[in-house]
Amino acid sequence: MPSSAAAIPAINGNSILPHLRRSNLNRPLLFHRPRIVAITATSNATATSSTSYLTSVNEEIDAHLKQAIPIRPPLSVFEPMHHLTFAAPRTTAPALCIAACELVGGHRRQAMAAAAALRLMHAAALTRDHILSGRNRDRIGHSFESNIELLTGDGMVPFGLELLAKSDDLTQSNSERILRAIIEITQAMGSQGMAHGEHNHSHHGQSDHSDLVCRKKDAGLHSCAGAVGAILGGGTEEEIEKLRRYGLYVGSMQGVLSNWVESRGESSMEKVLNELENLALQELEGFDRGNVQAISSLLGTNFGDA
Amino acid sequence: MPSSAAAIPAINGNSILPHLRRSNLNRPLLFHRPRIVAITATSNATATSSTSYLTSVNEEIDAHLKQAIPIRPPLSVFEPMHHLTFAAPRTTAPALCIAACELVGGHRRQAMAAAAALRLMHAAALTRDHILSGRNRDRIGHSFESNIELLTGDGMVPFGLELLAKSDDLTQSNSERILRAIIEITQAMGSQGMAHGEHNHSHHGQSDHSDLVCRKKDAGLHSCAGAVGAILGGGTEEEIEKLRRYGLYVGSMQGVLSNWVESRGESSMEKVLNELENLALQELEGFDRGNVQAISSLLGTNFGDA
Repeated sequence: MPSSAAAIPAINGNSILPHLRRSNLNRPLLFHRPRIVAITATSNATATSSTSYLTSVNEEIDAHLKQAIPIRPPLSVFEPMHHLTFAAPRTTAPALCIAACELVGGHRRQAMAAAAALRLMHAAALTRDHILSGRNRDRIGHSFESNIELLTGDGMVPFGLELLAKSDDLTQSNSERILRAIIEITQAMGSQGMAHGEHNHSHHGQSDHSDLVCRKKDAGLHSCAGAVGAILGGGTEEEIEKLRRYGLYVGSMQGVLSNWVESRGESSMEKVLNELENLALQELEGFDRGNVQAISSLLGTNFGDA
Repeated sequence: MPSSAAAIPAINGNSILPHLRRSNLNRPLLFHRPRIVAITATSNATATSSTSYLTSVNEEIDAHLKQAIPIRPPLSVFEPMHHLTFAAPRTTAPALCIAACELVGGHRRQAMAAAAALRLMHAAALTRDHILSGRNRDRIGHSFESNIELLTGDGMVPFGLELLAKSDDLTQSNSERILRAIIEITQAMGSQGMAHGEHNHSHHGQSDHSDLVCRKKDAGLHSCAGAVGAILGGGTEEEIEKLRRYGLYVGSMQGVLSNWVESRGESSMEKVLNELENLALQELEGFDRGNVQAISSLLGTNFGDA
């Protein structure tokens, strides 16, 4: 397959982009959970296919985080933080943040610290899930006492924000954007977002509300990622809001894929996913079609069960 | 007593300030734990005595927080956050932050959001203590399930940082200072500070190390408070470092007062406190004596057992 063809993200052989309508798409791949996207080594920072864009971006975020969380004293802090961060299942939110930054004309290094912070937030939320319910025990491994996990989770969010706040040193006179990104992330973590989702989750368990709640959590993380990437990349207010909504729909799709109650049936799930994908793609319509490949490639990825 | 006399903070009738030496001070009041400073209503924002400075500053911080944490939807977030914040025992760190800001020539409104964030951090740490050990159960009341407390504690630190990041709107072109304050606070919360203290606490329990660990926690919060206040008030690098160390010694004193192992005896405790107070007062020597009254009044206050 020539690389120009590979550059168009495809679901089951049908390219999404040339039409920006999805009525002629089917999505059997999305139903085969877990759909684990192969993470293969590549030195090519310019993505040429959906998998390699995600791969290369995630590798850069990993490298950034590995440098930021060295295994060094105090070992009681950094060893479990290192482990819990890298052992946590993936999310596409950090890559979405980078893609949004690039889509509005920014360089990915401008959003790298924010992407790392999002990764830490996600890992901290999973650690909290782990403590609350034990249900991620097998996913992230159980190498530390739950007290240590609790404390490490508590430290991971501030540490991510520290990385973001410090990234001001690299790009001068960028502090307004970084402060705004911090507001977005703290809101998503706190009053408006993931904690709220968790509260409901904690109250309702796997009730009828659980898919809505999980969708809210995934949606919150991804809409924050889209907005933050656009802010840091210097997007206009309109672009920021479009990418916030794009992230909302992408995250909602992932929430549906990860938490769909089986008894509801696949046809109903497909309908919901179709609606969300339509809404997501509409948000990309204002952007140059040649530049939306990378970010739209994240639509079909589900790490939720990886 | 004329107000000019009341303006000089005193321990057991001896004024600290005119000499900045403490060899002629005795401190029986410090040993009468809990020494609860009476919180009385006052409309006088300009402090005229040690108690009224602390009172008026804490009332302003309370008012700021009450406005920021209204009891509104989502109730599952704001109701426990409101309760856990205001029911938590006091700490002098937020007032120290305001006092440091004012000492370097800033206005207290410049440090108000940071002081509120420090209050939230402290309450979040106590909530975590509560969950880990149950030992604060009677202190902060136990009105919510521990899961809700865990989630609320998780949300409180991001919420505090959100308040701080948003305070940029009020004081224009202040974003560099606010970012620096965020770095200080996230470091104190995360890799370098309270979480580390908690880790050791969790490992060692009430061992011989416990007073050192608790001292590190209190010291970390207060040294952060001093530095952040000085940063936001526009202090020089030298002033920032002096007030960081001042906070370190004030916080260490509070850690000693709150967590001293009884068997070690009061004479040994007094010796440690004397050393710390000497070190603290030395840090104030470079400042105008007429302006150090407010901040030095916090030296003798112990909310630790309130």
